[in-house]
Amino acid sequence: MSTISEKIFSKASGKDVKANEFVMAKVDYAMAHDGTSVLAVRSFKNMGLENVWDPKRIVIPFDHLTPANTETTADLHHDIREWIGGQGIPNFFDVGEGICHQVLPENGFAMPGKLVVGADSHSCTYGAFGAFGTGVGATDMSEIFASGELWFRVPETIKVTASGKLKKDVLAKDVTLKVIGTVGASGATYKAAEFYGDTITDLSISGRMTLSNMAIEMGAKAGIVPPDQKTFDFLEGRAVEGYEPVYADEDAEYCAEYDIDGANLEPQIALPHQVDNVCDVSEIEGKKVDQVFIGTCTNGRLEDLEVAAEILKGEQVAVRTIVIPASRSIMLEAVRNGTAETLLDAGVTLGSPGCGPCLGGHMGVIGEGEVCISTANRNFRGRMGKGGFIYLSSPATAAASAITGEITDPRTV
Amino acid sequence: MSTISEKIFSKASGKDVKANEFVMAKVDYAMAHDGTSVLAVRSFKNMGLENVWDPKRIVIPFDHLTPANTETTADLHHDIREWIGGQGIPNFFDVGEGICHQVLPENGFAMPGKLVVGADSHSCTYGAFGAFGTGVGATDMSEIFASGELWFRVPETIKVTASGKLKKDVLAKDVTLKVIGTVGASGATYKAAEFYGDTITDLSISGRMTLSNMAIEMGAKAGIVPPDQKTFDFLEGRAVEGYEPVYADEDAEYCAEYDIDGANLEPQIALPHQVDNVCDVSEIEGKKVDQVFIGTCTNGRLEDLEVAAEILKGEQVAVRTIVIPASRSIMLEAVRNGTAETLLDAGVTLGSPGCGPCLGGHMGVIGEGEVCISTANRNFRGRMGKGGFIYLSSPATAAASAITGEITDPRTV
Repeated sequence: MSTISEKIFSKASGKDVKANEFVMAKVDYAMAHDGTSVLAVRSFKNMGLENVWDPKRIVIPFDHLTPANTETTADLHHDIREWIGGQGIPNFFDVGEGICHQVLPENGFAMPGKLVVGADSHSCTYGAFGAFGTGVGATDMSEIFASGELWFRVPETIKVTASGKLKKDVLAKDVTLKVIGTVGASGATYKAAEFYGDTITDLSISGRMTLSNMAIEMGAKAGIVPPDQKTFDFLEGRAVEGYEPVYADEDAEYCAEYDIDGANLEPQIALPHQVDNVCDVSEIEGKKVDQVFIGTCTNGRLEDLEVAAEILKGEQVAVRTIVIPASRSIMLEAVRNGTAETLLDAGVTLGSPGCGPCLGGHMGVIGEGEVCISTANRNFRGRMGKGGFIYLSSPATAAASAITGEITDPRTV
Repeated sequence: MSTISEKIFSKASGKDVKANEFVMAKVDYAMAHDGTSVLAVRSFKNMGLENVWDPKRIVIPFDHLTPANTETTADLHHDIREWIGGQGIPNFFDVGEGICHQVLPENGFAMPGKLVVGADSHSCTYGAFGAFGTGVGATDMSEIFASGELWFRVPETIKVTASGKLKKDVLAKDVTLKVIGTVGASGATYKAAEFYGDTITDLSISGRMTLSNMAIEMGAKAGIVPPDQKTFDFLEGRAVEGYEPVYADEDAEYCAEYDIDGANLEPQIALPHQVDNVCDVSEIEGKKVDQVFIGTCTNGRLEDLEVAAEILKGEQVAVRTIVIPASRSIMLEAVRNGTAETLLDAGVTLGSPGCGPCLGGHMGVIGEGEVCISTANRNFRGRMGKGGFIYLSSPATAAASAITGEITDPRTV
């Protein structure tokens, strides 16, 4: 009668635990990116510590401000590279390799049953592989660097069931936005979510990652898709160690349950400035946009770029359109299979792998009063630039909007 | 008995003029990029002016800080777009289209015999097409916006003759660095340069652009390659209007002459922090580098990327290596012909078209004490980041250095 989270924390703490218990848990893999590693390392050094608990279990991808956007960033990157070298951390992914939440799964660090903790709020992405993936603060990460452990309150779990076959041009992102709009931005605070139903099992690995990635946007500590054959296939040849899939018991206790009607779902969009401010795209069609951004840990995967390319094929973008692949290997595949050619031919600005302008640091910051339709996960006020307006959508809706220069239902182009 | 510059200024001013005379000259095309258009437009407005002299003769590419790197940049871009729209300037190239000095030639604005003035010091690039291309300050540009004219002192001309067939892996950039090392950083101040000799005529259009691009690095007002069939072929279907090639008379007066031995030239490199601090690459081999940067208006063309790809094929970069195509059309060609695939496969970070980190604004700023080998045109102290060290080389030398992580003669890899 346990949830996936209860089982993972039982294993990680060495005793049978239930929701709301406090545990010291062993972390399987610990991630910090260029933004948070700076703080984690500073805190680590301030504690007078010299060596990390296990260099092989630490993964550091540089993604947030890469290639370095300022002298300060360059100096901080330099210092962290030195620390990584000194600690002998083998899993370092420098500038241009990709976004942490793409790099970890691609390299087999996100596995069923594992506790994978990242110093980044969207570390819940790893739930797409049946892991308990969660974000912690940078100073918490310094504790993990030191000991390999952290305390947790075992979360209660909500159960989200999405059923029915999605219509054409209705994508994982639309399901995700619908879930968040339904549960609410704080509807799952400090809870885990488990995702069920044929809509979910039909999603590709990429689509599941979109869903799990945004669990934090309803406050969830984790957003877990039970692993299946698709998961195992993806991990074949990638998983860095053995793993044991974990499933909830049939009589597991959920604190809340939500049902999503996948079959009748329309393309969704989140309006400024809250992620749960969700409506059908058709309700807001015609709103002028200044910029389109396709990328991020939410929707920067090959499948997302391919969806955009299919819509943009033979067309010309009407507004500046930035596409940033989530990793170098995705960019390479997009170059190999013609996706990059189609995008460039349509007038797209194709940028180097990383977080891009998602967090307003560079590569497409928007100006006062400007509107950006983005495939990212957050539309908070000022995130991509002070005074800007961010609409969150699927890559299909974003690509359709690029052609018209206004928010557009992808089924109309 | 006239030089190319004397003839172009005679035509542009409507009277026969000689070196050192002052003229009011009609400008054929006027360019300002996102950096300088801000100041030019402000000055234009401050003069109380409303309409530019001829919208069709103004070209504005956004390239320096694109996609926008900060809120300030985003706001400035926004304001300039509005002004461009209001003036009805048709030749606007937004974010991601490429570097001004690539975009103007690609789109046929750089033609033999024309006076093409840009609010950017490397506007001398247009000399590769037999134009008098020169850079002016942003406030001078506002005068041109208003009247289509500017005063000039007709420059004296130096004659540079490079002879002999270049060895393998010795490229246009090596010739260019040798010229600048020979003439000196202020050896041609307020003079024009004319380039002659079979080494020059053998250069491709891309190679000639590299050469003309860096004329300003010896202080030259312009660096002109006499147009030939290669020039006419390049302009076929591109030139936005008719043009008349201009050549120097046999008895034209030159204030100085320099001879370069192309046949015995070795790969060259400019050491920090002066462009004329040039030596053979072999003399500095083994110097560790932290970053390699291939791109810019000097060496971001397809040919440059292909040279790099040929060297990097099947190899892995040892240090972070950033490649930024000079324009979207170059990136598209590089994607189409396999160059981009080879580069990405070798671990390169492929960035969106524009100036990239050349001017230290984003996309690869270097940290205190870091060393970058770059194909750009300037290695001034602090240009790519305070406390950094910039070595300037050809794309072949840069690519070879990417493999080893230290400055490397391309003939040794």
